[in-house]
Formats: sequence, structure tokens, C-alpha cells
Amino acid sequence: MISVVILGTGNVAKHLFDVFWDIEEINVLQVLGRKKKKLAYFKEKVATSTDFSNIDNADIFLIAVSDDAVAEVAQFLNGKKGLVAHTSGGVPIAALGNESRKGVFYPLQSFSEGKPINLKKVPICIEAENKVDLKLLQELAQLVSLQVHEISSDQRKSIHLAAVFANNFTNHLFTIASEICTDNDLPFSILTPLIKETVEKLKYLAPIEAQTGPAIRSDVKTMESHINQLKNKNYQDIYSMLSKSIKEKHGQKL
Amino acid sequence: MISVVILGTGNVAKHLFDVFWDIEEINVLQVLGRKKKKLAYFKEKVATSTDFSNIDNADIFLIAVSDDAVAEVAQFLNGKKGLVAHTSGGVPIAALGNESRKGVFYPLQSFSEGKPINLKKVPICIEAENKVDLKLLQELAQLVSLQVHEISSDQRKSIHLAAVFANNFTNHLFTIASEICTDNDLPFSILTPLIKETVEKLKYLAPIEAQTGPAIRSDVKTMESHINQLKNKNYQDIYSMLSKSIKEKHGQKL
Repeated sequence: MISVVILGTGNVAKHLFDVFWDIEEINVLQVLGRKKKKLAYFKEKVATSTDFSNIDNADIFLIAVSDDAVAEVAQFLNGKKGLVAHTSGGVPIAALGNESRKGVFYPLQSFSEGKPINLKKVPICIEAENKVDLKLLQELAQLVSLQVHEISSDQRKSIHLAAVFANNFTNHLFTIASEICTDNDLPFSILTPLIKETVEKLKYLAPIEAQTGPAIRSDVKTMESHINQLKNKNYQDIYSMLSKSIKEKHGQKL
Repeated sequence: MISVVILGTGNVAKHLFDVFWDIEEINVLQVLGRKKKKLAYFKEKVATSTDFSNIDNADIFLIAVSDDAVAEVAQFLNGKKGLVAHTSGGVPIAALGNESRKGVFYPLQSFSEGKPINLKKVPICIEAENKVDLKLLQELAQLVSLQVHEISSDQRKSIHLAAVFANNFTNHLFTIASEICTDNDLPFSILTPLIKETVEKLKYLAPIEAQTGPAIRSDVKTMESHINQLKNKNYQDIYSMLSKSIKEKHGQKL
């Protein structure tokens, strides 16, 4: 049995809590948050508190707060015997300070309010400073996911950057595509099969092999016509910049 | 029974031929292409020819060639009684010339060699100049797909542009993410669950509602660190440009 205290009340905290709650081998003792209102989600099932100076003892303290707040929250755990781990992609393990046993338990996924996620398929990136702590995080991670990876702080920094391209920026391209559809009385859903196939193809081909479109064909006429169709200056710049990068990546002259 | 002649031997021609071949109500009479070698794929099942001056008569002539070649190939069909339709997203119906009955039969999907696609779920965008021709294209489209849309040339131009963002550009972002992984001894597959979730979310949320990441949070420190991690100048520009657009779209000051 692994006992856990969760510090934080956001989407990651909620998703982890829900998953932990259903696993017999994990005992969530307490959830802490600054705002009483945000603790409402947890308080029917588990002890909650806004008082960070009075935290229960546990095997693992999981800090699931915004990147900027990790170091500050970690200070409240100085002197605790348990392992202190944060859940952030972009924060190095060193941010947890000097005194405590330190670790990282980073679920590589984008969690949204009210959208359930099967954690079994989510890669959990773990890091610790010694074998005992690594083993403890591994145990916890394997209870919730089938994909557990030991990842250094430097690697995690790169994963976080790659995730911005693969998730945040991709989603913005979908936003632009959706806007183009709406402006022309077309349902965005008409693009769903194409978007699914874009991802489906990654099973068979590396993305660099799957590249198609006017930029890789150097189809200047189509590209010019596309840029003229776009009214938003940012979208024009994004179109030009991505086309330039595709062309150069695929070794064609501008 | 609808009789069809296919002009073209590329991915779209192959995929359509394979689907048509299995449907009893569609009779593919002939496939034409400039290069004999490319006709090999078809010649065991159907009559093939490199001679565009000697084309069989059919209900529908389907021109599945590169955008630039549509108008030229259409000229060989002058004087034919059947309906001449092209399969391109980016080409207006007018490119088919003046003499023949004209139409468009555009499957909104990205076809890759050797990767089978279930056409039933692919939106077919049809256009014609009169009701009789539209009905004929509708019949053909409904035999292969559950999603048939009547779409004007102007709308199709916009769909094509939206598709460049949703497919071509998205795929390039995956290429960049994959490169970052490889450069840091990480398997690109570690991002697969995140990428799948990015698309999965579109079922529940409009993309503009699903936006997350450093740009929308105006997390300047993380964005600067990310740009410094990127060595490729194009990737740096893409990062800055997309972040700027996300921020402005979501109404935050730079």
C-alpha cells in the first residue's frame, strides 16, 4: 500500500485523484489547496485542507500545481520523511529544493476539465535521485499506467517542448482550419476524417515521410492563392513560415 | 449501373479504382495514363491505355491527375456525351473547359501509397452545373461514401485551404516534434497518446476552447526557454509565430 498526499486542485490533481481512488494499493490520505471552493471536488471522499503548515505524513507527496508554484509549495514539505514529487513537464527536479527526497511523476497528457482520460495508456515519466525513490515512483506509476519511462530532467524539458508542437500548436492549426470552415458556411466536422487520417498515418509512416501538400510540391500558384484567401495577418505569416520550413526540410529551393 | 473511365494513375486514381471495383453498381471501363509503367497496377483487371485520343464512352469521366494537368486532360474529352468530373480540391469546375458536361467529385482525404482507406467515412464533395449531372454524381458518391456534400467551387477552395492547415501543416509540426524526440534519445511514440488526445478532444470541445500551453498562459519564461532549445531557425520562427497568434486569438496582450 502506497500512501499519497496530493497538493493542488487543478485538472492534473483531479485526474490523478480519481484514478488513485479506484486502486486498492493506493491510499490517498489528504488533498491540499489554497482555495476552499476548489477542494469541494475532493472533500466527500478524502480529508482536505487549505492549511499547508499542517500536512499529513505519507509515502509520497505529489505536487500538482502550476509550474511557477512548484518551488513554493515544496517548501512546506521541508522536514517530511516521505518522497516529494512534482507532476510538471517543464520544471526540473532541482526546483523541489534541497532538504527532501525528490522526484518527478509527470503524466505526458493534456488534461481537460470534465473529459475523462484512460491513464493506462498515458506515458508516466518518472525521475528520482536514488534507486529507492525511483522504485517507489515506479510502483506508483505501474499501478496507474502500462507505459512507465525513466526520464531525466533534460529529456523531460525536450518532451515538454515537443509536446507544445504536437499538442498546443497543432490545436491552434485546428482552430484556424475551423475558422476558415465557419467563415465559408462549412461544418468543421467535414475535416474530421482528414484529421484522424493525419494521425492514423503515423502508425505506418514517420511524419517526414507522410508530408504532402502544395509546399512540398513547390506549387507556388496554390500557395499564393491560399495566402490571399487568408484575411488574418498572423495566419498568413504562419502559412508562409510553415511552407518555408516544409520546403527547406525537404531540400527544395525557395 | 454507372460506367466510369478513370484518367490518371496516382494515389487518388488507385484508391478510387479499388473501391469502384468492389461495387457491383459501378462499371470501370478503362483507365488512362501517360506512363505505361503506372498502368501496370490496373491492367490485370481493366482495359488500360496511354492513348488519350481514343477514350471509351462512359457515363462519367473521372480526371484524377495533378491540379496543373486537369485542364489539359479535359481537352481530350471534348465532344464526349458523358459527364466530365475532376477530383481536385484546389481546381475550380471552370477549369474543365466549355464543351462538356462538367462536375467535381472531390474525396476530402489525404491518400498515401499502400495505406488503405475506408472511403465510406470520407466526405465526398460534389459539384455540377445542372440537376441531372448533380444527381449522377450523387449516385456515384453515395455508392462509395456515407458522407456526400454538395459544395461550390468557392467553398471547395476554402476546404482545401483549411485542409492544408489541418493536415499538411499539422504533419509538419509532428515532424518537428519527432526531430526533437530523436535528438534527445526519446522515441517519438511517447507522444502518441498526447497526439491522439489532441484529436479526440475535438469531439467534446471546439479547438479554440481546447487550447492549452505556455502561449495562452502568457508564460514568457517557458516560451523563451523553448525558443533557446530549438536550434533550427525556421522552428524558432514557427514557435514565435504560432505563440503570437495563440495569444492574440485569445485576447491577451503581447
